[in-house]
Amino acid sequence: MSGFTQIIQKDLEKLESSIDELISTRVSYIKEIVTYIIKSGGKRVRPVLVMLCSKLCGYRGRKHIPYAAIIEFIHTATLLHDDVVDNAKTRRGLSTVNTVWGNEPSVLVGDFLYSRSFELMSRDGNNEILKTISKVTTALSEGEILEIVKTADVETTEKDYYEIIGNKTAVLFGAACEIGAILGQRPDSERRALRNFGYDLGIAFQLMDDVLDYTSYNDVLGKHVGTDLKEGKVTLPLIHVLGKVGGKNKAYIEKIFDKQKITQRDFDRVLDIIEENGGIAYTLQATERHLTQAKKYLDIFPSSRYKTALLELADYMLKREM
Amino acid sequence: MSGFTQIIQKDLEKLESSIDELISTRVSYIKEIVTYIIKSGGKRVRPVLVMLCSKLCGYRGRKHIPYAAIIEFIHTATLLHDDVVDNAKTRRGLSTVNTVWGNEPSVLVGDFLYSRSFELMSRDGNNEILKTISKVTTALSEGEILEIVKTADVETTEKDYYEIIGNKTAVLFGAACEIGAILGQRPDSERRALRNFGYDLGIAFQLMDDVLDYTSYNDVLGKHVGTDLKEGKVTLPLIHVLGKVGGKNKAYIEKIFDKQKITQRDFDRVLDIIEENGGIAYTLQATERHLTQAKKYLDIFPSSRYKTALLELADYMLKREM
Repeated sequence: MSGFTQIIQKDLEKLESSIDELISTRVSYIKEIVTYIIKSGGKRVRPVLVMLCSKLCGYRGRKHIPYAAIIEFIHTATLLHDDVVDNAKTRRGLSTVNTVWGNEPSVLVGDFLYSRSFELMSRDGNNEILKTISKVTTALSEGEILEIVKTADVETTEKDYYEIIGNKTAVLFGAACEIGAILGQRPDSERRALRNFGYDLGIAFQLMDDVLDYTSYNDVLGKHVGTDLKEGKVTLPLIHVLGKVGGKNKAYIEKIFDKQKITQRDFDRVLDIIEENGGIAYTLQATERHLTQAKKYLDIFPSSRYKTALLELADYMLKREM
Repeated sequence: MSGFTQIIQKDLEKLESSIDELISTRVSYIKEIVTYIIKSGGKRVRPVLVMLCSKLCGYRGRKHIPYAAIIEFIHTATLLHDDVVDNAKTRRGLSTVNTVWGNEPSVLVGDFLYSRSFELMSRDGNNEILKTISKVTTALSEGEILEIVKTADVETTEKDYYEIIGNKTAVLFGAACEIGAILGQRPDSERRALRNFGYDLGIAFQLMDDVLDYTSYNDVLGKHVGTDLKEGKVTLPLIHVLGKVGGKNKAYIEKIFDKQKITQRDFDRVLDIIEENGGIAYTLQATERHLTQAKKYLDIFPSSRYKTALLELADYMLKREM
């Protein structure tokens, strides 16, 4: 990603071989699909968080690497299931697993990754981590389901939105950071601080994702811009605007969601309405606010190169273009 | 099911309220779907096994009830994901969740049930059970994927078939029984005996399922007979026959699998070929063999009404019509 990963470069290399090792299965078909998706250029943000937070907490063992892999497995499982749910065609510029192999393996390989993660965790036997992660995976599914319930619902509130992204994205970021404190056997206050840091960082990450889905023109997301609108996902840029605009514009947006197929023209017009009404700026401000909050949670930790790296990672969120 | 459940009747009633309690979620949509599928008349075979084996092992606590619920949750999660994978329309005579609500909730509510199960288990903190169950859920996904790989493959061997049903069905039966020994803190030999008992019982259960899919005419399975053939599942009745019949019949069966839609006439002709070549009788013999083996594993346990009930449950497998 950037400079802040340099101090864990060796661990990140070990992560890749750890991933290969931990997904070993006698079913070669699984291996093929997992390799395809997990090696397709994910940013490894969550593993980086596990590693930096473990180091921040003075952890000197080797377990942060398999745990970083496990967090990436869980994230990958959600991607596989999301793509079935959203009927997505591409991700990170590559065809999705459901497009290449069909829905079946996408569902089942996701299940495999979830199960393998719990298998590895229960083998290690750290019950605190197990409790943390299993609570998170429950929240992930709740968040995804809430998102479905709110599909194409122009009455979606900011509160609904934050509940959705909190569950579907931020809790996993929170857990990734919390693992560092658990491995480092730090007191509850630090554990909570890192969980909160990760949570707000995750909120900011998702807010930025939702901005980029509107503003990113040149496929840097590896998917066509405007995916959220096409999928009926009512995200903050739109929610803000829906609360402001009057009858005609609101009715137009409602009609958009009723359409079978949203054209480029529809998208451009919605984006115009959003920009005219400050939806993007509003969401960017919210992102900054959550990043500021996230960084504040690190105050209780003394200065270290790991803390600096985490602060840089937070700043990077707002700059990222993918 | 039958007489052998009478001695745990009260626990079975508690199971139903335990299920309601343990799936509690603030997302009412999840509750609605879980209730629909989990209260749709499942036979609760796996919970019965958890309960009878716990009692057999002298367990006198209350945890066998939530663990029985957890095993049913995991089973239900596999059903939800299976129905997406198989594109199934009905189950137990009711429309499937994917038919009523779509694929999305079917995938995500399955995820919710898996995650909640691990959440409950890690909260209880019995690491032996956690290790057992997480190994099993990995095997479940491997079994399902192996089944996909072998879809419509007329070269599927008996070995392939037993590997598939071992993973997709028998390991969960094995784990259900093993939990009883873990809760009862019995020695490894008894734990292994109950796991093996459950495993062979599960094999027999699946063999019988695969027989009934051919022979059950009147929708007692709650789904149309011949589902396996329609879905390209090459099960033992057919595998046995494919190994015996010569060119013309084999070529015919191969052609069947290539067809987009299998008619009643196709099915009837395949069933004729199977019956003429002893495919059903062969599978029933295999069922009996596995039941005999299963019951033998109980030899190390002294007589008790729980042992009698487990032996009766085994005998019931061969008699069941659904």
